[in-house]
Amino acid sequence: MITVLKENTTKQQRDNLIRWFEAQGLKVHISEGEYQTVLGLVGDTSRVDDGLVEALEIVERVTRVTESYKAANRKFHPEDTVVSIGDVKIGGGSFAMIAGPCSVESESQILEIAQSVQKSGAALLRGGAFKPRTSPYDFQGMKAEGLELLLEAKQETGMPIVTEIMNAEHLPLFEGVDVLQIGARNMQNFELLKAVGKTNKPILLKRGLANTLKELLMSAEYIMSEGNGNVILCERGIRTFETYTRNTLDLSAIPALREKTHLPIVVDPSHATGKSSLVESMALAAVAAGADGLMIEVHNDPQNALCDGAQSLTPAQFDKLADKVRKIREVIS
Amino acid sequence: MITVLKENTTKQQRDNLIRWFEAQGLKVHISEGEYQTVLGLVGDTSRVDDGLVEALEIVERVTRVTESYKAANRKFHPEDTVVSIGDVKIGGGSFAMIAGPCSVESESQILEIAQSVQKSGAALLRGGAFKPRTSPYDFQGMKAEGLELLLEAKQETGMPIVTEIMNAEHLPLFEGVDVLQIGARNMQNFELLKAVGKTNKPILLKRGLANTLKELLMSAEYIMSEGNGNVILCERGIRTFETYTRNTLDLSAIPALREKTHLPIVVDPSHATGKSSLVESMALAAVAAGADGLMIEVHNDPQNALCDGAQSLTPAQFDKLADKVRKIREVIS
Amino acid sequence: MITVLKENTTKQQRDNLIRWFEAQGLKVHISEGEYQTVLGLVGDTSRVDDGLVEALEIVERVTRVTESYKAANRKFHPEDTVVSIGDVKIGGGSFAMIAGPCSVESESQILEIAQSVQKSGAALLRGGAFKPRTSPYDFQGMKAEGLELLLEAKQETGMPIVTEIMNAEHLPLFEGVDVLQIGARNMQNFELLKAVGKTNKPILLKRGLANTLKELLMSAEYIMSEGNGNVILCERGIRTFETYTRNTLDLSAIPALREKTHLPIVVDPSHATGKSSLVESMALAAVAAGADGLMIEVHNDPQNALCDGAQSLTPAQFDKLADKVRKIREVIS
Amino acid sequence: MITVLKENTTKQQRDNLIRWFEAQGLKVHISEGEYQTVLGLVGDTSRVDDGLVEALEIVERVTRVTESYKAANRKFHPEDTVVSIGDVKIGGGSFAMIAGPCSVESESQILEIAQSVQKSGAALLRGGAFKPRTSPYDFQGMKAEGLELLLEAKQETGMPIVTEIMNAEHLPLFEGVDVLQIGARNMQNFELLKAVGKTNKPILLKRGLANTLKELLMSAEYIMSEGNGNVILCERGIRTFETYTRNTLDLSAIPALREKTHLPIVVDPSHATGKSSLVESMALAAVAAGADGLMIEVHNDPQNALCDGAQSLTPAQFDKLADKVRKIREVIS
Repeated sequence: MITVLKENTTKQQRDNLIRWFEAQGLKVHISEGEYQTVLGLVGDTSRVDDGLVEALEIVERVTRVTESYKAANRKFHPEDTVVSIGDVKIGGGSFAMIAGPCSVESESQILEIAQSVQKSGAALLRGGAFKPRTSPYDFQGMKAEGLELLLEAKQETGMPIVTEIMNAEHLPLFEGVDVLQIGARNMQNFELLKAVGKTNKPILLKRGLANTLKELLMSAEYIMSEGNGNVILCERGIRTFETYTRNTLDLSAIPALREKTHLPIVVDPSHATGKSSLVESMALAAVAAGADGLMIEVHNDPQNALCDGAQSLTPAQFDKLADKVRKIREVIS
Repeated sequence: MITVLKENTTKQQRDNLIRWFEAQGLKVHISEGEYQTVLGLVGDTSRVDDGLVEALEIVERVTRVTESYKAANRKFHPEDTVVSIGDVKIGGGSFAMIAGPCSVESESQILEIAQSVQKSGAALLRGGAFKPRTSPYDFQGMKAEGLELLLEAKQETGMPIVTEIMNAEHLPLFEGVDVLQIGARNMQNFELLKAVGKTNKPILLKRGLANTLKELLMSAEYIMSEGNGNVILCERGIRTFETYTRNTLDLSAIPALREKTHLPIVVDPSHATGKSSLVESMALAAVAAGADGLMIEVHNDPQNALCDGAQSLTPAQFDKLADKVRKIREVIS
Repeated sequence: MITVLKENTTKQQRDNLIRWFEAQGLKVHISEGEYQTVLGLVGDTSRVDDGLVEALEIVERVTRVTESYKAANRKFHPEDTVVSIGDVKIGGGSFAMIAGPCSVESESQILEIAQSVQKSGAALLRGGAFKPRTSPYDFQGMKAEGLELLLEAKQETGMPIVTEIMNAEHLPLFEGVDVLQIGARNMQNFELLKAVGKTNKPILLKRGLANTLKELLMSAEYIMSEGNGNVILCERGIRTFETYTRNTLDLSAIPALREKTHLPIVVDPSHATGKSSLVESMALAAVAAGADGLMIEVHNDPQNALCDGAQSLTPAQFDKLADKVRKIREVIS
Repeated sequence: MITVLKENTTKQQRDNLIRWFEAQGLKVHISEGEYQTVLGLVGDTSRVDDGLVEALEIVERVTRVTESYKAANRKFHPEDTVVSIGDVKIGGGSFAMIAGPCSVESESQILEIAQSVQKSGAALLRGGAFKPRTSPYDFQGMKAEGLELLLEAKQETGMPIVTEIMNAEHLPLFEGVDVLQIGARNMQNFELLKAVGKTNKPILLKRGLANTLKELLMSAEYIMSEGNGNVILCERGIRTFETYTRNTLDLSAIPALREKTHLPIVVDPSHATGKSSLVESMALAAVAAGADGLMIEVHNDPQNALCDGAQSLTPAQFDKLADKVRKIREVIS
């Protein structure tokens, strides 16, 4: 950690600060410049609160050299984390496809889609039961009933299920769910992160619409610091000024996160683009960029889907996509 | 609501869609162009799900002419909403200053600051007890104990208090709190919005870091649709590419929201800029732009504040600011 | 084009506006709603100035249904444009790699790199002679001398060359250059666009850091409306709040532009990411997403490159990349 | 300047780098941490190319402690720069209003507006003759003829004139113009910056739509390093995800730039918001935030303005605004 002092800092103020750092077990190296003095802090700075230091009158700027996330940091855990969900593995060279409808709508709908995507090679079934919607007047999901239907589809097909949890009070309902999804809008719902961190279920953590990779990793750290290391990161598009696509899928997040963390990374091109016509090319791009998995919306009747149908593939489109995905996986591995 | 059809739509497909709209009680006007047909929908379209319509194969684009928020919409409620908190009023020409520390730290700290800002003219006391922090290793607030201290300061000074709630399960602890704050990171925590919408307390709803004004109003609508119309909107900076300020304070949100909604609007320049040296000028600018209130961080010892001290004013700075605020209020009213 | 009128518009005002539209050869369809009247305009609206209409007191909003670009619009030119540069073709199924150093530095440097990337399969040689730099104190390129060296490398290897032009006055110097590059910062330097539109050379037009796809196409339209239809679009990253990568490469621009325009699309992952370690995965992702070409920085001594060395591949890395690119091309075609 | 070395750097590599820095006249201080070594560079680092250093294999990151702009830097020139245009002064406590139409349209139009805004207290007349437009099909200004009309209005009223230059080749036409405006889209047209830096006319430099304050100052530095120190900075809104306003006016740029530079700062709320109904409150906010000037679009017939009429004030609205501006100036000074 680097602390740049202001020009007019007195020697005594500086010495006080140095003593304060040293009292926290840090070593301090001093570089004196013409206009500024820079203190280099050595030791475990991950628990030093940047805000606190920057609040000091004599401090101009604080820069971290090592990151404040530890558990998620590849520097301290060089080996890839492999998350296991039943027999399915994600990360460390293992790749998985997660597919299913945006919302569970009926028994026949979810079962039909599950069987179809399973045949095409999807390893996990996704489906929304509790749905976060911008408008209180839009369809909010089938809730508990939707979870029941997902569990039936799981029993029928043997596919583990992934579904979003929006409220820690609902945890008992999610007993049979295999992977808990934290949605983009809840990425910094720290209370929810702590609650799912106390479970032993794999967590699929979506990047917020305006969050940096560092913040995504800090949110993973919230979950991991409660004892749950099974975190799967998910890039699903960030908000920019572009309006043709719903969001801008940041595929450079894949190799960038790969450098910073050992956690597996999946990509959701359906929500990112918001247009089914763009999903295939973005899915293939994600695989070429080294993603550990894909999360794809598939609907047997996208025309009549109760939400986000515009971005859903048909089972036939998904089957074709899955085939190309396998071929690209062969090229890059 | 305008629905643009794709070029190759057949007459039969078009007629089916028109019948479907009509079945929902809407009137449909048709404009036929060389390349496109446009359907204009007339009637109560606020409950029509845009996603659903856009999902249809024959639909190219959907544009709303009237907004999907009703309760918060000035069009349907032309009169300004005035939120009353004890004797304090915000909105409809009434202006209030909310001041206090980022975090409650001790009895003497919160009491001393409360008395000081009250003397300078602040009407409401703010102070964080439950603190959302990006890192799990940073100070998370004094929690329930902090709430106790806030309530003591309220009893001592008579100032109503504003503090953030992060979890609906904590509601019983907030019994004595006057205004519940929903933080920027929870602006789309819809479960929390619905929970506070079921209380009868005024809600201070902060705009998310990457949320549009329309989304802010949709989140207000979540609260209002549960029966609680006492919503105060708060602009606190949005995320951009600029790095010198922590966020970019969007002051045009004030006159823009004024056009769209009847709800009062307060501005938090402390969190937006993240630098105490920028707070005064941004506070005055907000008042000049017509804000109904200000939310300012004040700390009696900003150097040693446990969080966000870098953006806190001293009581003396706040006193000077409050004086200028009054003078600008006179000019613009 | 859709024109939404304000609620309190009188019938006479409305009729005046309708007559004004009709005088411009447009047909007007009227949809009357409870709160608004919507005029649907049919005919050639591409020459109607949106600003002008929105300026009218009675107009609330103007929305275009058809785009204001004509020459670049796939709707009016369904066939892919293929840009030919000597024997090299880009677009319509033809793919080309453009490689070379950020800056031309010396005869041996440019020649050595040219021969190396040619052997690896690059079809075009890139190299900066006139360099746009944020700081006036940074290296600005070898200018005319750099152009000379590029032309020598072209003569030696037979590779057509691509290099940036920053000033229309320099056009005579670019006589022997095969493709004129318009840099991101000049994407809306309309004077320069018009000047290169008067030449018959292929233009590689880079997307600006904060420009929409629509604006990119309008800039292409500037070039095309002067008579030069040989425009190659280039996605090179947009500016977001993320700081780990220099910019955020928007790969969804590839399939999105494919829908909107017939012009070829190449991707520059080197400038977008600013980190050589991210270039390969982003290049492969771009190819998987359907790009018509790649533009890659290659330097034989990236450690000592005079600019942007941090993002350059070595010739050996480029050779390995080129091999993977060919394999992915086989999968997707 | 701080250079962070990678973990696996050998002692010899490190010593080589230190020698290279020392050869450039810099002193190097070394801080050794557990995972990283940090080099602190002391001396004139403004001419060191960050990219070059970051390109080195052993370097993880480079951070500047002092800025790379010198001429524009308040640190080296603590006194405010006052730009004089005839008798008008901007900066150092002097405030000026610049008003006029977006485009010059006719002799009577420009003269009538000039006389009107002058009576209301505007010190400078603005008016576009060469207009940058996103679409090649939109009105591009009256060009040379427009300049003539501006000069006539200047002669008639004695008001100095401000107008945009888009092409260095046009400089001879701008002989009689008092202030040359560089538009937002040309903020990084470095060739144009250098050309106007060679004149002795005051330059009004608009911030680009996606440019940081640091980049704005680097562009000012381009002008100043050619010998022209009369630069006025102009905030005119940046691009964000918000769509209700055309851009997001960043008023915190005023106090932030005040800390970083001695150059005067004016604000253009007309282009930023794109809506005349938002202009007054944003103008007053800018003044309250300490702006040295305002740039306001005024049109005597905004309904029929040839461009951007939607954001123009009428002369009567401007008169009312000017009055409030004076009152706010009294409060804050």
